[in-house]
Amino acid sequence: MENIIVQKYGGTSLQNTERIKNTAKRIKSYREKGREMVVVVSAMGKTTNNLLDLARTISDSPPKRELDVLLSTGEQISIALLSIALNEIGIDTLSLTGAQCGIKTNGLHSNARIEDIDDARILQELKRGRVVIVAGFQGINEKGDITTLGRGGSDTTAVALAAALKAEKCEIYTDVDGVYSTDPRIVPKAVKLNAIRYDEMLEMARLGAQILHPRSVELAKNHQVPLEVRSSLNFNSGTIILGEITMEDIRISGITSEKNIARISIARVPDKPGIAYRLFKCLSENEISIDMILQNLNHENANDISFTTPTEALGEALPIVEKFAGEIEAQEIIVKENVCKISLVGTGILGHGEVAAAFFETLSNLGINIEMISTSETKISCLIDGKDADNAVRTLHRIFFEQN
Amino acid sequence: MENIIVQKYGGTSLQNTERIKNTAKRIKSYREKGREMVVVVSAMGKTTNNLLDLARTISDSPPKRELDVLLSTGEQISIALLSIALNEIGIDTLSLTGAQCGIKTNGLHSNARIEDIDDARILQELKRGRVVIVAGFQGINEKGDITTLGRGGSDTTAVALAAALKAEKCEIYTDVDGVYSTDPRIVPKAVKLNAIRYDEMLEMARLGAQILHPRSVELAKNHQVPLEVRSSLNFNSGTIILGEITMEDIRISGITSEKNIARISIARVPDKPGIAYRLFKCLSENEISIDMILQNLNHENANDISFTTPTEALGEALPIVEKFAGEIEAQEIIVKENVCKISLVGTGILGHGEVAAAFFETLSNLGINIEMISTSETKISCLIDGKDADNAVRTLHRIFFEQN
Repeated sequence: MENIIVQKYGGTSLQNTERIKNTAKRIKSYREKGREMVVVVSAMGKTTNNLLDLARTISDSPPKRELDVLLSTGEQISIALLSIALNEIGIDTLSLTGAQCGIKTNGLHSNARIEDIDDARILQELKRGRVVIVAGFQGINEKGDITTLGRGGSDTTAVALAAALKAEKCEIYTDVDGVYSTDPRIVPKAVKLNAIRYDEMLEMARLGAQILHPRSVELAKNHQVPLEVRSSLNFNSGTIILGEITMEDIRISGITSEKNIARISIARVPDKPGIAYRLFKCLSENEISIDMILQNLNHENANDISFTTPTEALGEALPIVEKFAGEIEAQEIIVKENVCKISLVGTGILGHGEVAAAFFETLSNLGINIEMISTSETKISCLIDGKDADNAVRTLHRIFFEQN
Repeated sequence: MENIIVQKYGGTSLQNTERIKNTAKRIKSYREKGREMVVVVSAMGKTTNNLLDLARTISDSPPKRELDVLLSTGEQISIALLSIALNEIGIDTLSLTGAQCGIKTNGLHSNARIEDIDDARILQELKRGRVVIVAGFQGINEKGDITTLGRGGSDTTAVALAAALKAEKCEIYTDVDGVYSTDPRIVPKAVKLNAIRYDEMLEMARLGAQILHPRSVELAKNHQVPLEVRSSLNFNSGTIILGEITMEDIRISGITSEKNIARISIARVPDKPGIAYRLFKCLSENEISIDMILQNLNHENANDISFTTPTEALGEALPIVEKFAGEIEAQEIIVKENVCKISLVGTGILGHGEVAAAFFETLSNLGINIEMISTSETKISCLIDGKDADNAVRTLHRIFFEQN
């Protein structure tokens, strides 16, 4: 239906019953504009963490199926309370768990993928004039078991529902006004973007702008669902994320910094074919996430291989790298923990050498050493020392956003 | 299957993660005897009340459908945590919500009745050697909506599953060792009963021995499910409740006292046919629970009608009684709040006048005035002043249980 809006409210919009009542009033104000509404909610505030803590006092490695049964209660509590709050102010509602609203997933507990949505019940209730309140983050597999969707799960539920219902828009309510040119906590002059393309948002999301999980942006892109990121604390317009935006050739969307990265270098790796492949295959089999990779020939018949990984994965990654280095008789392993990836995100950056040049020049003028570089259609990233990160972001923002 | 045992653990057995781990060890000890086991659980400790409080900060009259969505999370948390605890000590389990284990109810939210159980999934998992953990108190109606069973709900789930699975026995674990001849908090010499008939247990349950809800006893009686009430804090044998027990003719099972009762009397009701009927029809239409009723002719063409109701229902009952008294031009309404029903429960009491005589004589010797009397196949009850209740129970217990 053309007229359907899917709204998603996160844990901070539902932190306590006072916030839930405020969220209900907000939903009422939209409802009174005559929209058909589906509202997706997360668990209240810290509920998910509290439930996890309970499980962990019993077991260090609880079965994932049972964790899903446990964690899915968080959103179920939210749908019931929000539904009660809406009824209290005269809005007719119906709450549905993931299973009840036909969100069918694969069987991967704690990290399931949505395979299909049977929207019959939702459409039926919308036709009866009800606001439908859906528990985010959860679904049901073919056995009828409860699954959860992992990180960014509630956003993913909202976008998937918007796609299935062919909704006009999917609005993600959060505690910030939208997507900014960079982190406003680092750069107070950061600019709110009115619109951004899916691909740019994907780079922004992947690079540490913690507003939307990349997974939900990808899903929105694949189904061409217009997304809007808005604040649940005011009525300002937010940032719209869509397919195409008419504008000049080069467009810089933002500057991101991603901290808590570790760089691991293996020095003097014998220069034989397939060695890098074997290393990264080994790491990926152990589900260790790898981001930037650099291989440079610096001695006769020997390379240095460097790569980055989240600091939290270092404990798992190092023993694997050490074992591998031993097998191939590499000379040395060098670990640097506190590094940071600074990225310039935008459209057409790669085709315009002057943008990259200005980026590198700015860092150079600050005396910041660039350790690694990677580029894509929509971004340039540099790895630098973590202590220089905030200064770099502030200066880059001044150069790219605060001129004239 | 002959070999199936259904066990039910209440909120105190699951009060915190420490208790949950202890309950898991207990289940393991039974499991290791080779039993097929289905375990029904309540919500942890005060979870249900905490959830209700949350709802009440939002609304004075939350929709019952949404309350059921909310409250059912309590048992869902319990099944997940108990399942995790059992896996941690090497017992293979599977948790199921009411919906997942096919507990189909009618549509009466907050007080649903079980209509059918589709036990296919449970039997399949038992065959795979798993202990099946079921959320008590909840089911699903024909629309797929979550329902809850109201008071005594988890006991009812356990008995219904035992009946459907043709289990050997249904064990109800609680914080007392079994059913006692009277309340051990009032009479320290109270005797634990080894066995009691369904009908006697029904009287005991209805009369305020708060161990088993009458509804679950009725269900057990209808399906001839042997019930055992046991403590989850020790391994003592409990009280078995069954159909027939071989024993001598007269058997006194226990003495119960039910407090928080109000007596309402309407004085000088015109003696016309159908007046009492109209009064009680009117009260039952407003779902006001009525227990004892006394109608006595004391003036020419005028009766006094007295009845008892729980004190908590007084606020609702009184306006109805006042309106009715006005319509029929009765003279006066007299309310007495703090009355108590003392009952002697047993088999064959009614046929043996000497038991009733001893009962009345004991109260008379204590100088206690009997305000109303009612009898059935398995009990004699007297309404007395609340202040005399404990003294009456102690003395009656001495007369009937502590002789020779």
